[in-house]
Amino acid sequence: MNPINRLAIVGGIHGNELIGVYLVKKFQKYPHLINRNSFESLALLGNLQAILARRRYVDIDLNRCFIGDNLPATKSSIYEELRAKEIQAILQPENQEFVDVIIDLHTTTANMGLCIIIGNIHPLLLGLAAYLSAINPLVKVYIHQQARNSGFLRSLCQLGFSIEVGAVAQGTLDGELFKQTENLVYAVLDYFEDFNKGKNPLIQNSVTVYRASGVVNYPRNEDGDIAAMIHPQLQFRDYQPLYSGDPLFLTFESKEIFYEGESTVHPIFINEAAYYEKGIAMYLSQKELIHI
Amino acid sequence: MNPINRLAIVGGIHGNELIGVYLVKKFQKYPHLINRNSFESLALLGNLQAILARRRYVDIDLNRCFIGDNLPATKSSIYEELRAKEIQAILQPENQEFVDVIIDLHTTTANMGLCIIIGNIHPLLLGLAAYLSAINPLVKVYIHQQARNSGFLRSLCQLGFSIEVGAVAQGTLDGELFKQTENLVYAVLDYFEDFNKGKNPLIQNSVTVYRASGVVNYPRNEDGDIAAMIHPQLQFRDYQPLYSGDPLFLTFESKEIFYEGESTVHPIFINEAAYYEKGIAMYLSQKELIHI
Repeated sequence: MNPINRLAIVGGIHGNELIGVYLVKKFQKYPHLINRNSFESLALLGNLQAILARRRYVDIDLNRCFIGDNLPATKSSIYEELRAKEIQAILQPENQEFVDVIIDLHTTTANMGLCIIIGNIHPLLLGLAAYLSAINPLVKVYIHQQARNSGFLRSLCQLGFSIEVGAVAQGTLDGELFKQTENLVYAVLDYFEDFNKGKNPLIQNSVTVYRASGVVNYPRNEDGDIAAMIHPQLQFRDYQPLYSGDPLFLTFESKEIFYEGESTVHPIFINEAAYYEKGIAMYLSQKELIHI
Repeated sequence: MNPINRLAIVGGIHGNELIGVYLVKKFQKYPHLINRNSFESLALLGNLQAILARRRYVDIDLNRCFIGDNLPATKSSIYEELRAKEIQAILQPENQEFVDVIIDLHTTTANMGLCIIIGNIHPLLLGLAAYLSAINPLVKVYIHQQARNSGFLRSLCQLGFSIEVGAVAQGTLDGELFKQTENLVYAVLDYFEDFNKGKNPLIQNSVTVYRASGVVNYPRNEDGDIAAMIHPQLQFRDYQPLYSGDPLFLTFESKEIFYEGESTVHPIFINEAAYYEKGIAMYLSQKELIHI
């Protein structure tokens, strides 16, 4: 495989996810923190207007706008479409892969801990996931396959992935999770530095992953409004097995709704604030061990 | 004292505080839940446009717009100024106190538990605070005195107060806190029903309160941006004593900043998302026992 020449760390693709915003500001102020001998690093803020407005986005979700189309967007009146083009012009000028790695920093109101989200199962990303899991047991790996240029920032390059940290409320910082995320970024940089230098950073030959297998929507009433809440027994229990018959929702009338699927699943993104507008209550995943 | 004739329960004065929004929707759908023999109850949603937009407010904070001025607001182009007039017209038509009690439902990202916020030290409110504290040890009482018609919804009438529940992320529901808040509202209704019937619901003659004594702003850098986070040792420790020398902040460079005040204080609203735009890190209070 070719060496890594350039790596980008992006924060604030969603303007109210502050850990990524303030980590990137720190890296911009102290670039030596992310410089490594064998590759160049750049730190970039994502949705500038949404960061100022302390909102996820202004017009539409920026993290659905990276469709690999480098036509000029000057005709668009949608801020995020313009900003996506600007970011693509920095990361992929001339439609070439200028950066080899993209680390996209996010937070979630779900209790996701330190989660690496991989959209493209590349051996170097699986090796990274194994490495990070081995050095920190709080790290979890979620595989949600998506096509190249499918709208997510991470889909812009082969070695693009997200770090999703929680639980943290939108619009707030959490000092402990800030430090843990920062250390995770440094571990990622060490991994690629070792790779470039021909060292094998792989310290175990398998990794536990959670592979996307479905989605659960909120129950709705006749007006289309949500009719139930995440069941208190499920709240904050991301990654834990959910068995047939386990409680899933509690209606506003205090009626319990149970999981009726036959297979055991592992819910993640339970009660993520940003998914209410889509009616999504959680994603489901299958836990598996991948040998690498 | 005069009997209570009408009581209003208001939710969604801030559009992204969902427990109040969905409790009010429930009470509007099932009015028998809040009906009592001796007084009339009404349930009202606050910031309708902000609820739709899943934001705290659209233009300005609605909970700073209740200034008791009943002039027509048709000239204003600020949504919240118009909506404040509409709400005042429902609660105080002809500038008279149509409702005797206002319960204003809020949530916070701070770990405030079930907090009653009293802006006006009225014996009936202190009795209510004592009653609620006695039947549920999770209830805390915060006294933040403010003038009549000072902008807060609760300042519209003598027996106005807020219920502030947390920690819960903006834009999310929490099933456990929803149930606890609902039960707290029923206990408030029981209290006023007992009062009207001449029963004395007072089951203890003192109440522990946290009285507002100050505010702590985030440290700033030369650009005016915040320069530190709530210290991890202080996060979620609302109401706990903070002694001189205790850690207060952690800068992004991992430097600790300590509390240097001489008197012991009890911080509340620690790391509330909505206060970042004002630069407020927490409020300070003095814990005291009031005999009633």
